[in-house]
Amino acid sequence: MVHHLHDFVRETNLTHDEWRKGLELLYQAGEISSPERNEFVLFSDVLGLSSLVDMVNSPADGTPSSVLGPFHMRGAPNVEVGGDLIGDDKGVAVVVSGRVLTTNGQPIAGAELEIWQTAENGLYSAQDEQQPDYNFYACMKTGADGRYLFSTVRPAPYTVPDDGPAGELLHATGRHPWRPSHLHFIVTAAGHRTLVTEVFPSDDPYLDQDAAFGVREQLIMDYKEGNNPGDLPDDLAIKSLIKAPFYTVDFDFVLVSK
Amino acid sequence: MVHHLHDFVRETNLTHDEWRKGLELLYQAGEISSPERNEFVLFSDVLGLSSLVDMVNSPADGTPSSVLGPFHMRGAPNVEVGGDLIGDDKGVAVVVSGRVLTTNGQPIAGAELEIWQTAENGLYSAQDEQQPDYNFYACMKTGADGRYLFSTVRPAPYTVPDDGPAGELLHATGRHPWRPSHLHFIVTAAGHRTLVTEVFPSDDPYLDQDAAFGVREQLIMDYKEGNNPGDLPDDLAIKSLIKAPFYTVDFDFVLVSK
Repeated sequence: MVHHLHDFVRETNLTHDEWRKGLELLYQAGEISSPERNEFVLFSDVLGLSSLVDMVNSPADGTPSSVLGPFHMRGAPNVEVGGDLIGDDKGVAVVVSGRVLTTNGQPIAGAELEIWQTAENGLYSAQDEQQPDYNFYACMKTGADGRYLFSTVRPAPYTVPDDGPAGELLHATGRHPWRPSHLHFIVTAAGHRTLVTEVFPSDDPYLDQDAAFGVREQLIMDYKEGNNPGDLPDDLAIKSLIKAPFYTVDFDFVLVSK
Repeated sequence: MVHHLHDFVRETNLTHDEWRKGLELLYQAGEISSPERNEFVLFSDVLGLSSLVDMVNSPADGTPSSVLGPFHMRGAPNVEVGGDLIGDDKGVAVVVSGRVLTTNGQPIAGAELEIWQTAENGLYSAQDEQQPDYNFYACMKTGADGRYLFSTVRPAPYTVPDDGPAGELLHATGRHPWRPSHLHFIVTAAGHRTLVTEVFPSDDPYLDQDAAFGVREQLIMDYKEGNNPGDLPDDLAIKSLIKAPFYTVDFDFVLVSK
């Protein structure tokens, strides 16, 4: 780190003013940080550091990991395979399904998925007092076939906080604070490395300009528009309530053994 | 900066634990920082960044600059050439003299020197309630011959604050927090680049292990032990009060024209 910091200073002939400005941004990051907001993590996110750490530590043959983000909450309610996350919420229905697999393509029974996402307003219930606790937060355990299935709504793109020094950096470099919409997953299974990741709809307008650099080619999932609810799986709890147009998503997670 | 941060992550295969620890140190630096203490500047100092910025911005043909440090105060009292900084303080007397010169060796008349240093206890009056305001802080203006002269005491080595994350870094890397003793100077003259620097006694035990990397070969001044106060300059205000043993120091500052 010291070698790289020094090379940076030498290569740029960093002036005292530039050096002071950098230290000022760090001092301001300290001032705006709190147990609820960590501006240093945000700096790491918008500089691509968090994602790069994910990438260098991702095994080549499993699903890539991606940023955990600040909105994960422990203790989300258990939902059966086929269960519903929509409840009374508004939004376009999405039926998400897939399997948890080994690198050999074998289904993993009893794998646990933690799932969380924004409501249609782009906010997580962790940050939105208008939503019930744990709205769009769930835990699900795969059956013998390694399959998971749930109904939800489309998550929404949102901005990272840009009212602090990390935002100043974004704006000064001509960038915006938007992240493409995504579903967060933590996938755990005995004998396998835990996977922390997020998956992105293929049609999101911010897919190639994520402020946090979380998108990977293998983490893009196809949103297929469906017109016939009768084609949906029979074990989908709210199958009879879903009306066209809706979306279906099929996405498999591949876990690497320990 | 981004290129270097990314190369650092790639070259070290930085783990999530290491990444989290780095972010934790920054968060803690924010928590311990205040208008009176800037842990980010301290990080910059102990990583050699502050000194490197000084070095890349120092003109090759003048006196090198060195770290300003956090204890500079504006508004120090004016002291005539030959004046005294000791007053009622204890310590070994040092008579410091020299000239402010152009790069051609011509004396600069009317150059202004700001001078500050620790008392014998290793504390600056800016941080020590036991000392009078501006104790060992002075401003002095050179006469037609470019000369400055004052009596003071030997400054003392001291430690940078090591009770925060920068101290944790020092200790984790087997380093100590000591700085060699030094006199601070800011030298200003019309038509010349302002010089912010510090000068170190040649016999200081920490000369080659300054926690803040402020020492440069050209900033080391010889402390010559004197035995005959009668040899001291006649315009030294307290000449008649100085008793052997005392030290004399002769150090010229070379300013680069703008």
